Amino acid sequence: MDIREFVERSIGCWRSQRSAHHLAFSHFEAIQSVIDIISLAPDDPGVLELCQTYSVNPQSIVCPFRMTWEGQSDWDESEVLKGTCILVPVPDGEQLQKGKLLRDQGYAETMAAAGRYTLTEDGTFVLVTEYDRAAAEERIWFVNPNVRCRVSLIKTSAGTGVVTASFSSEIRQETPG
Amino acid sequence: MDIREFVERSIGCWRSQRSAHHLAFSHFEAIQSVIDIISLAPDDPGVLELCQTYSVNPQSIVCPFRMTWEGQSDWDESEVLKGTCILVPVPDGEQLQKGKLLRDQGYAETMAAAGRYTLTEDGTFVLVTEYDRAAAEERIWFVNPNVRCRVSLIKTSAGTGVVTASFSSEIRQETPG
Repeated sequence: MDIREFVERSIGCWRSQRSAHHLAFSHFEAIQSVIDIISLAPDDPGVLELCQTYSVNPQSIVCPFRMTWEGQSDWDESEVLKGTCILVPVPDGEQLQKGKLLRDQGYAETMAAAGRYTLTEDGTFVLVTEYDRAAAEERIWFVNPNVRCRVSLIKTSAGTGVVTASFSSEIRQETPG
Repeated sequence: MDIREFVERSIGCWRSQRSAHHLAFSHFEAIQSVIDIISLAPDDPGVLELCQTYSVNPQSIVCPFRMTWEGQSDWDESEVLKGTCILVPVPDGEQLQKGKLLRDQGYAETMAAAGRYTLTEDGTFVLVTEYDRAAAEERIWFVNPNVRCRVSLIKTSAGTGVVTASFSSEIRQETPG
């Protein structure tokens, strides 16, 4: 599996069940959402702008996409969690198994970010993003073409402390028509 | 990471937060438990009996262990979930990265079982156990020496359907004294 195949398999509409474990308090949070992943043209204005922000040559990117989500947490059922962002993979040269992943601020993200991704031997997409005071590690894999699992860990930048561990099971929605 | 190192790192007492996603109903279940993992002597009577059940030469096993758990689900807070079982890794010859894992019935398991394990390049322990009408896939990895993550999937034996996906975050407990 390379990044191109991984993105292609991800395109679609997914119903997501997410559980977040806030480890310090042994607290469980349950989030239900719908996630839409669509591919973008390499010359989409938002994609080109993101390349410029990170001084990346638009020729070196592959299969940019947009992710949009809308959901609800059992912590505050009156609040709708929603957001959208553009994601742009930038492989390390010819090597499609690893590279950078650029993400724009969209609405809902606090800032643009660039992470490092790797696709492991067994087809797991691993993304590590370093922030000022924290790091996020995300692992996504396909159980079958219609089921994805995603584990996200937020660690303090000291590195040893895990603050939140969350797990999503994502099921592909039938497309109407 | 080989099976020996994986078992050694797992020995201890863990506080576990588990979320089960029952996919057909989009239902969340939250389970809190304490898991104790202790190593057993290769000539422990329970270990020898399990080897005999599966016609495995006791010389070919490595680091057998016992897992004991006790917890509570938010589905039925009055019920205590508890169990114990013996687990015996049987590597494929010299190859410590893959092999069989035998498990006895203990109390709480419906039957003894033998699964196939693999340790991937990035240190994830993957266990696949086939039952009559279902298959279980479990992935366990260490985030750091004191935090483990575990994802378990129960699939129907037809193979494409995932029935339950569950995620545990496990934190090592301080040992008193």
